[in-house]
Amino acid sequence: MIPRYTPADFQELWSPERKLSTWLEVELAACAAMEEAGSVPAGTAAGLRAKGIVLDAARVDAIEKVTKHDVIAFLTHVEEKAGIEARWLHRGMTSSDVLDSSFAILLRDAAGLLLTRAERLLRALEKRAREFAKTPLIGRSHGIFAEPTTFGLALAGHYAEIARGVGRLQAAKKEIAVGKIAGAVGTYAHLSPEIEKKALGALGLEPETVATQIVARDRHAAFFSALALLAAGIERFATNVRSWQRSDVGEAEEPFTVGQKGSSAMPHKRNPVVSENLCGLARIVRAAVTPALENVALWHERDISHSSVERMIAPDATATLGYMLDRCAALVEGLVVYPENLQRNLDRAGSLYFSEAVLLALVDSGMARQEAYVLVQRNAMRAWSGEGKFYDNLAADADISARLPAGKLAECFDLEHALAHVPAILERAFAR
Amino acid sequence: MIPRYTPADFQELWSPERKLSTWLEVELAACAAMEEAGSVPAGTAAGLRAKGIVLDAARVDAIEKVTKHDVIAFLTHVEEKAGIEARWLHRGMTSSDVLDSSFAILLRDAAGLLLTRAERLLRALEKRAREFAKTPLIGRSHGIFAEPTTFGLALAGHYAEIARGVGRLQAAKKEIAVGKIAGAVGTYAHLSPEIEKKALGALGLEPETVATQIVARDRHAAFFSALALLAAGIERFATNVRSWQRSDVGEAEEPFTVGQKGSSAMPHKRNPVVSENLCGLARIVRAAVTPALENVALWHERDISHSSVERMIAPDATATLGYMLDRCAALVEGLVVYPENLQRNLDRAGSLYFSEAVLLALVDSGMARQEAYVLVQRNAMRAWSGEGKFYDNLAADADISARLPAGKLAECFDLEHALAHVPAILERAFAR
Amino acid sequence: MIPRYTPADFQELWSPERKLSTWLEVELAACAAMEEAGSVPAGTAAGLRAKGIVLDAARVDAIEKVTKHDVIAFLTHVEEKAGIEARWLHRGMTSSDVLDSSFAILLRDAAGLLLTRAERLLRALEKRAREFAKTPLIGRSHGIFAEPTTFGLALAGHYAEIARGVGRLQAAKKEIAVGKIAGAVGTYAHLSPEIEKKALGALGLEPETVATQIVARDRHAAFFSALALLAAGIERFATNVRSWQRSDVGEAEEPFTVGQKGSSAMPHKRNPVVSENLCGLARIVRAAVTPALENVALWHERDISHSSVERMIAPDATATLGYMLDRCAALVEGLVVYPENLQRNLDRAGSLYFSEAVLLALVDSGMARQEAYVLVQRNAMRAWSGEGKFYDNLAADADISARLPAGKLAECFDLEHALAHVPAILERAFAR
Amino acid sequence: MIPRYTPADFQELWSPERKLSTWLEVELAACAAMEEAGSVPAGTAAGLRAKGIVLDAARVDAIEKVTKHDVIAFLTHVEEKAGIEARWLHRGMTSSDVLDSSFAILLRDAAGLLLTRAERLLRALEKRAREFAKTPLIGRSHGIFAEPTTFGLALAGHYAEIARGVGRLQAAKKEIAVGKIAGAVGTYAHLSPEIEKKALGALGLEPETVATQIVARDRHAAFFSALALLAAGIERFATNVRSWQRSDVGEAEEPFTVGQKGSSAMPHKRNPVVSENLCGLARIVRAAVTPALENVALWHERDISHSSVERMIAPDATATLGYMLDRCAALVEGLVVYPENLQRNLDRAGSLYFSEAVLLALVDSGMARQEAYVLVQRNAMRAWSGEGKFYDNLAADADISARLPAGKLAECFDLEHALAHVPAILERAFAR
Repeated sequence: MIPRYTPADFQELWSPERKLSTWLEVELAACAAMEEAGSVPAGTAAGLRAKGIVLDAARVDAIEKVTKHDVIAFLTHVEEKAGIEARWLHRGMTSSDVLDSSFAILLRDAAGLLLTRAERLLRALEKRAREFAKTPLIGRSHGIFAEPTTFGLALAGHYAEIARGVGRLQAAKKEIAVGKIAGAVGTYAHLSPEIEKKALGALGLEPETVATQIVARDRHAAFFSALALLAAGIERFATNVRSWQRSDVGEAEEPFTVGQKGSSAMPHKRNPVVSENLCGLARIVRAAVTPALENVALWHERDISHSSVERMIAPDATATLGYMLDRCAALVEGLVVYPENLQRNLDRAGSLYFSEAVLLALVDSGMARQEAYVLVQRNAMRAWSGEGKFYDNLAADADISARLPAGKLAECFDLEHALAHVPAILERAFAR
Repeated sequence: MIPRYTPADFQELWSPERKLSTWLEVELAACAAMEEAGSVPAGTAAGLRAKGIVLDAARVDAIEKVTKHDVIAFLTHVEEKAGIEARWLHRGMTSSDVLDSSFAILLRDAAGLLLTRAERLLRALEKRAREFAKTPLIGRSHGIFAEPTTFGLALAGHYAEIARGVGRLQAAKKEIAVGKIAGAVGTYAHLSPEIEKKALGALGLEPETVATQIVARDRHAAFFSALALLAAGIERFATNVRSWQRSDVGEAEEPFTVGQKGSSAMPHKRNPVVSENLCGLARIVRAAVTPALENVALWHERDISHSSVERMIAPDATATLGYMLDRCAALVEGLVVYPENLQRNLDRAGSLYFSEAVLLALVDSGMARQEAYVLVQRNAMRAWSGEGKFYDNLAADADISARLPAGKLAECFDLEHALAHVPAILERAFAR
Repeated sequence: MIPRYTPADFQELWSPERKLSTWLEVELAACAAMEEAGSVPAGTAAGLRAKGIVLDAARVDAIEKVTKHDVIAFLTHVEEKAGIEARWLHRGMTSSDVLDSSFAILLRDAAGLLLTRAERLLRALEKRAREFAKTPLIGRSHGIFAEPTTFGLALAGHYAEIARGVGRLQAAKKEIAVGKIAGAVGTYAHLSPEIEKKALGALGLEPETVATQIVARDRHAAFFSALALLAAGIERFATNVRSWQRSDVGEAEEPFTVGQKGSSAMPHKRNPVVSENLCGLARIVRAAVTPALENVALWHERDISHSSVERMIAPDATATLGYMLDRCAALVEGLVVYPENLQRNLDRAGSLYFSEAVLLALVDSGMARQEAYVLVQRNAMRAWSGEGKFYDNLAADADISARLPAGKLAECFDLEHALAHVPAILERAFAR
Repeated sequence: MIPRYTPADFQELWSPERKLSTWLEVELAACAAMEEAGSVPAGTAAGLRAKGIVLDAARVDAIEKVTKHDVIAFLTHVEEKAGIEARWLHRGMTSSDVLDSSFAILLRDAAGLLLTRAERLLRALEKRAREFAKTPLIGRSHGIFAEPTTFGLALAGHYAEIARGVGRLQAAKKEIAVGKIAGAVGTYAHLSPEIEKKALGALGLEPETVATQIVARDRHAAFFSALALLAAGIERFATNVRSWQRSDVGEAEEPFTVGQKGSSAMPHKRNPVVSENLCGLARIVRAAVTPALENVALWHERDISHSSVERMIAPDATATLGYMLDRCAALVEGLVVYPENLQRNLDRAGSLYFSEAVLLALVDSGMARQEAYVLVQRNAMRAWSGEGKFYDNLAADADISARLPAGKLAECFDLEHALAHVPAILERAFAR
């Protein structure tokens, strides 16, 4: 989490202050649940809450220097602030009851911040997709001109992929919103499933099905996988923007603000730096998946090797994805599309994309597919190497005109017909 | 996919013959759908199907050597076998309509094979967990004796994790059971959404929401992530078996068959080689995730860089996980548990695990938590370094006996009480 | 290692027969060394060798089904073939003495096969780089036209990167050519460093500095890293070919053989499928690095979790890289370059790339850099958006002509001057 | 780079101030070189240097908000500070000339900081290895008691692995100490190889063999691989400490400071948290490798997707490894070893580790190996399951005593003999 790529809300979410106040919330929720169970005097939690305790992260750090244990440092500091009543906190609990339940809250809230951003991105993609629903674009497979599609359809494809990413993140959010208040090895030795359920319920969490000392780490690995999948969807979009903006293509361009400079040496340059940045950052989010998976196989009832990993990847991956979603949404909203260049490139493709229609017409006329293929290819190859136009070549080829009268051939060269189903695809996509 | 780690059904699933017959199924399903739409003469698919065509993978390979294109080689071979009627196949379709729909079928079927195996593993885990529900096990955090739990609870934790992995694989199976018959760039230029829906429906697939030339690769990345998550759950279990079987621990052991040899040099050795193997193979399954994620960001309407990756990781990751599930299920079923060693290790822990109960009793008596902590720790440390037994030390400590009369202290040392909630946790786990 | 991507020599290298014959070589080399040390009767190794034993992989597999131990199965089979004299083999050795020394031989030989191929690739890159040393190419940063370079210089850059990859592979080959014959935990309990040195020396290996039961796995991780680094160099080249071949660019093209078909639906297409394939396969080779690194931290004197990983990634990563090197070399050798398109694209850049020369001339005339930047940019931007040519705009800009007389301005627009240092760079690259 | 895991010198190394001052150093070195070449007035660099410019990172950030280009912001700020003379800076250079040369300096210096730390770790490992050179340790393969080794030999193995890691990092440091001052696309359009060589030489760097707009990223990928390999060596050591410290093993323990608390609930616990931390952090360093490899295949003469990745992984991976080296060195220096527990565990192994000596004695007596194996195994198995001691069982086995008279059998049970070669291995290791 470096300042450059960290939105303010994620800076706050992962701050030491937020962490400590979340820990306190968990302790108070557990305390209140224990009051109902009778193991803590009634009113303790309310009394502590009434003190309006504000914890001092620097002081907790200083205590941890001695204890080398963060939760004990926190509890010591709470006792400093709240006095003897604080002894009722953490009753029968283990550090991870606090840590993991808090971590669940923070990851769930991070997911919430991400989902809100993703909605903005989806709205932008839908809007621009509808705007260019019928704007022809020469489709490219392998980077080679293929058949025509539309710019709006390309955007709708990204919409559908991001929407799937959102669905996966929603599922992962549910999976991660799971805490535990079950004691040192998950047996509720000095607690009970009822206390846990009540406490976690107040925090908006479900209890872990079977806890060890901690919540099982497959949940976290699933969460980071969901982040990487969403980031990969952004990466594909950004890769396409980079291609569209290439000098050789010129079909669309990132918004370029006044004052922005593209190069220290070449003043005319307008580079797709936002998209390139998004591609790089997708690698960062993706890089969190493997360590998260490596974190699953902890020893026995837990070892703490996962902790350092999570201290780094949880803020990094969530904040980076948050930044990506912000940037990508702005990019979609401001994307400058050049219909005249779209048309120019379509023209450069020289109608070769109608070859399949011709092929099918020949097959319909009774010719074997592979024979038809050879006929079409020889005329296409000639056009491609500059000898005549594709349509003219076909019309002049006796083997073809024997099968396809001029009217039939002309029917094969109909762009509108080729794109007739596009609006229906868009509606299907946006109906999610 | 090496023979050593490939179950027979996965060998068949990923064979060239199965691939070609699946391609033919897709072509025939599409053909039948086009008949209804009127673009192909009625009865064509049935007529072709009646020929009982068996494709020859070696012949297709030979043709591909010339065409350098697998689907064209396949179609050429179909025409060789089926004659001129085969020209109606593949009408308006692009290679990926066949390839991706077939791949969806194979991945879906692979998921099916995996889920069946996972059920066996779950049944075994439940059975053994119930068997040892109340068998005490000294819980270990950081590899250090913590509080007692039960062997059955440990197994139930693995059950719950595997069950979550199954849930994710079911979701991924649904996501991957998506094909496309939408033409060169997904516009249905010579097809229609209706034809696609009917054809895919006959194959048990859903249509891609917005296809490019291909089905979007985020679906596949999600699928491989689900495999890795399930493998990670197995890895955690196998890691625990390795620890339980350590000479220093001796709590459980892999089944050892007659004739099996543990070492070429040390005839007495019985090594947890199955579990170590499972840990290694989890790395292999995990290693498929990153390339699958890298496959998402293809250029424009597609590039084919994903294809070589999938040719390798799809058989490898699914077959390896299938092998893991088989082996892990057999391991659970045959796991030899040594209750006497479990008890011996519990005894070695020297009752120190009751320290928390004492701590809480002191707090209940009105002492501040951190003060109580110091009192308990000094007696525990003494016991740990061999000076007296923990209980005796506590009883002899005046600061403690001032607070806790002998009866109170004895109450803290109650194993049954500590494990009272375990049966309820198990029921919660198996009620999924 | 799937047939499609496995060169014949790698198929042989990783065959069961080659493995068994290498194991036998290690046993015989160790035996001969022990004869000199006096622990085995003189002439034993020669006698066994004289029998010309050919091992039967299927038979060894059958025995392993019972013993569940591959080296014991091998030794049993050797005894079947060679009789009682075979009892002198493996004296004081542990399985890993054989396995790891053999694995070192195979990995070293795999590296040899790769290095030979890499040399072919380097020769091809040098040849083509020299061929196009002075052929101008519009350089692109961010996909946007930048300053001119030459096609030969671009190739020379790939040459230099591949050459670095070769250097790393040579270092890794040396690191991996390390065996051990040091017994069960590396103490030479029934052996000696002298026996090991002699035996390994005969096999062209060095002894592991400090063995456990096995050779340390950091060596292997370094080896797989070297493979991935070389593959990444190929990936960068292939990515550039894909860009050069784009319909929008058209500067170079993969060789297209007679009979090859680009698409089942669009007969005119010539797709950069070799390069896309190389990009995909680079992901596969890269995917071996993480599991190889995960293999390092084995428990105590060894656990066998690394073994399954290596059974899969060693053949896969080496054979795949071998295939990549073959394909990439052929691609470079046959690459079709279109100088007329290179020139056309240079022209499309509209001389804007001379902006820096103008900027510098203004600075030389005494203007502050940022002021000069603004002046140049306003004229460049105008040209870029179609208003006049860059040179004309500059000439007509009073603020500029005040500083730069016509002659001075013209001097800035000199392509030959801009490329004058290119030949020297090439010589520096090829002098490695 | 989070405060918890960032040593102070890395905090400084990766600070905005250090970055800006390094950029200025590169500009001044280039300026000085240009003076010699005559393209900049003599004395310019010295004059600028004499001004003692201190750059203000916040001001540069503010300018970048407008320009959206970091190097232009920097140059603008330098002009603010240094006045019109600053126009001679950056002459003919592109941003990456500054950025990449500076990055090379910082990575080289980071490597320097790491190598110093690694030397401390090596010294500690050597010292402790010598200390326990002859202290017997029951070797474990698969976690199962194998043959005896010594605690010092185990440490020497870690020494050798770390030493190899150091060698690789030294090689990577050399590879990364490469800059470029070659202009927008590496052609020296307004520069020369001579200027570059002089400028970089003054900075302690070599020139990139063939630059594009940037230094090739395979160098960086190799660098991050070297970091991960060193981290993996630490991970293996830490994994062993975790095993040694297990309650079930108790052979060695992390230093435990006064005031440190092991658990909030179980006051007696001393957990190997340093080692677990090291294992987790190794995952973090390892996670940098894949994105670094993905950074290699940039488009054409460069795209900037690598930049965001490097902004995050360069500080993270180097600082984390620096922290790991510090912590690991302290761990080795303070490791508490328990020879009495080492002996206890050796005793628990029950002399079964002499089985191989017996096996060999039987073979020497003329018995076939597999037959001898069966004899030894049956007695070992009996001892393992508690029936008699291994030696006694063997002595009582008629098939064995027929071959081995009592004296011969006793000779097989000699620990000193088994460990006789250990000192020589240590000397070999430390002679690197």
